[in-house]
Amino acid sequence: MNGERFRDQSLIVPRGFRAGAVAAGIKPSGRPDLALFVSDRPCSAAGLFTRCRFAAAPVIVCREHLAAGGSMRAIIVNAGNANACTGETGRLHARRMAQIAAALIQCTPEEVLPASTGVIGRPLPIEKIEAASARLAASLEDSPAAATAAAHAMMTTDAFPKWATAEIQIEDQTVRLLGLAKGAGMIHPDLATMLVFLLTDAAVDPRALHAALTAAADASFHCLTVDGDTSTNDTVIALANGAAGTQALTPEHPQWDVFQAALAEVCKSLARQIAADGEGAHHLVQITVSEARDVESARRVAMTVALSPLVKTAICGNDPNWGRIIAAVGRSPAEFRPENVRLALGGIALFERGAPLDFDPAAVADYMRSSARVDVEIALGAGPAQATVWTSDLTPEYVHINSEYTT
Amino acid sequence: MNGERFRDQSLIVPRGFRAGAVAAGIKPSGRPDLALFVSDRPCSAAGLFTRCRFAAAPVIVCREHLAAGGSMRAIIVNAGNANACTGETGRLHARRMAQIAAALIQCTPEEVLPASTGVIGRPLPIEKIEAASARLAASLEDSPAAATAAAHAMMTTDAFPKWATAEIQIEDQTVRLLGLAKGAGMIHPDLATMLVFLLTDAAVDPRALHAALTAAADASFHCLTVDGDTSTNDTVIALANGAAGTQALTPEHPQWDVFQAALAEVCKSLARQIAADGEGAHHLVQITVSEARDVESARRVAMTVALSPLVKTAICGNDPNWGRIIAAVGRSPAEFRPENVRLALGGIALFERGAPLDFDPAAVADYMRSSARVDVEIALGAGPAQATVWTSDLTPEYVHINSEYTT
Repeated sequence: MNGERFRDQSLIVPRGFRAGAVAAGIKPSGRPDLALFVSDRPCSAAGLFTRCRFAAAPVIVCREHLAAGGSMRAIIVNAGNANACTGETGRLHARRMAQIAAALIQCTPEEVLPASTGVIGRPLPIEKIEAASARLAASLEDSPAAATAAAHAMMTTDAFPKWATAEIQIEDQTVRLLGLAKGAGMIHPDLATMLVFLLTDAAVDPRALHAALTAAADASFHCLTVDGDTSTNDTVIALANGAAGTQALTPEHPQWDVFQAALAEVCKSLARQIAADGEGAHHLVQITVSEARDVESARRVAMTVALSPLVKTAICGNDPNWGRIIAAVGRSPAEFRPENVRLALGGIALFERGAPLDFDPAAVADYMRSSARVDVEIALGAGPAQATVWTSDLTPEYVHINSEYTT
Repeated sequence: MNGERFRDQSLIVPRGFRAGAVAAGIKPSGRPDLALFVSDRPCSAAGLFTRCRFAAAPVIVCREHLAAGGSMRAIIVNAGNANACTGETGRLHARRMAQIAAALIQCTPEEVLPASTGVIGRPLPIEKIEAASARLAASLEDSPAAATAAAHAMMTTDAFPKWATAEIQIEDQTVRLLGLAKGAGMIHPDLATMLVFLLTDAAVDPRALHAALTAAADASFHCLTVDGDTSTNDTVIALANGAAGTQALTPEHPQWDVFQAALAEVCKSLARQIAADGEGAHHLVQITVSEARDVESARRVAMTVALSPLVKTAICGNDPNWGRIIAAVGRSPAEFRPENVRLALGGIALFERGAPLDFDPAAVADYMRSSARVDVEIALGAGPAQATVWTSDLTPEYVHINSEYTT
């Protein structure tokens, strides 16, 4: 599965940012595993983090640094080790990561946000990060190639690096956004660490940035997850450095909506790329629930379907076993009358008024077989609201990947 | 995986009951797919059913028959077709199943409870059931062999038939219980139809029977499921015909607890057998959460772990990737302090005070490799309550079985 299909642009690095990456020897494969994103000037920053009570050490440190309310200069991230469930030593290591990056670019450790992804519960080999730091500094560039290399260094089981960009006009200035993401697995937060870094050369008021990030995540990354459930390391960070030369954006700015929409689009693209890169996935699955009483009900129904292993395996097998979808709808916590529910797959109507329609199963199987993205369309007949969630199918390759992760 | 390990007794048929089974041609394989359980006298009856809003036609008919409050004489059950999502025609077919059985044993259709399991959304070939009915009647016997044959006929993806028996003394009479179950899949109700029939020659007041069944299911079948979530066809029926000659049991009877405990033990054995027969399972997984604030919290934590595909795949691979278990505990909805949580696998302590202990990963992998049942032990350090749930691991075979179910 190739993430390129989601990209209609080439990668653009917002002004004033540089990226770098090296192989520090944390991944046993010897592939690049340490990346640094740096702004040449202070950034306003916002972060969203896992709600898992065993939050990883770098998450704890990020929260501390953001809570202090100052500006930020850099993000340092390693793959190959999650630095989660590593106790007090883990927290010392996460702080040390921030110190290492701060020394490279002459800022305070509190201006650096650390992130980690990989195996849980093993001590972070901080000495490898230390030893690689000079090379990491030397690798920093403001080029698309450097940003792509950094996206590669964040990968664990990802099949491809994920990024999305946007260019918008604010106050007659060109403002750029670059989103970089790491995450595969079956998207449910149970299944993958998701790291997302959003860099923009807009100037954005910190509180407004947090609001924009929260709204964008609600319509993108949270549509890959069940309410509030997240892995130990999930992290979404936005940095806005103002290098584009606009006034600080707030919701009162006449072009706030333009910025908000661009940020949301970048996040949605990254979310779809993460779903498409489900570990071992054959299909990206897009589930749209319409005619719900409210958005929350629509999302719950869609999530119940998206999390059903029976639905996921049927889609893997290109098997039009729609009864499994209806069974999942039927046990989901939303208000509707069963006789009003309608189901279609890829536009082919399958089920209505409590009974199957007269469709051609071979045509449905053909649709599934030939589609990289399988569209599941559920109408509840209960109201005006709608929600879409994305997931991937459940394949034998997924099990192979995940049954031998640490061994 | 062999269910026999759970049986320390041979099958005993309670007095006054007969069972029969035939191949009616509903399963494409030509294997037995139609069974009948008959009492020679009226039974008090109790039933628990799916909460899925798309309840299958036989579930709707069972509810009607039980709601009428009369006694019951028989259960008729087919495999190979769930008669679910089949509209008004499906309900006619389910009623017709009851009529067919009633005609065979000269009772009213309202004294018969129909059940179905198999593919959802295809018309039940009622004419095949009709055509097989004379052979079905001829197959009725009070022998263990006949009951075993009936348990076989209920199977779909089950690898082995499931049954459990108990003999207890009530008022100096021997009272017998026989439980028969159908269910594989990964146990979560999303994943499998579960049919359970409990036959006893005790005399039991109908209201008391319902209470006993509810309590027994809470500590067994509901420990395989998340609160209230069930498939279209899930059915648990108890029939008590009084042939043992005791007085009608109620909670006021001095030996009520003996009956209640025996019923609960039979249900627990069936629940473990269903878990052990997870589709493609390599391991039965028993998750015990102790030191919880209350039983409900304990169960929620255990269920969150039990439903984690990452935990299930790690166990499949005999991979001591305990961090995935801790991540699932961390995002489960229960009250505890992360630093108080302790984790052990098969008695080997792995995690305590927020960090891993100094254990030998090879020893843990050996334990997993050599154990048909993997025990996951989580202590929350938050109170006195405990709960145990059962599940199975997630294997490539599971995906193969379920990706090609209807095709």
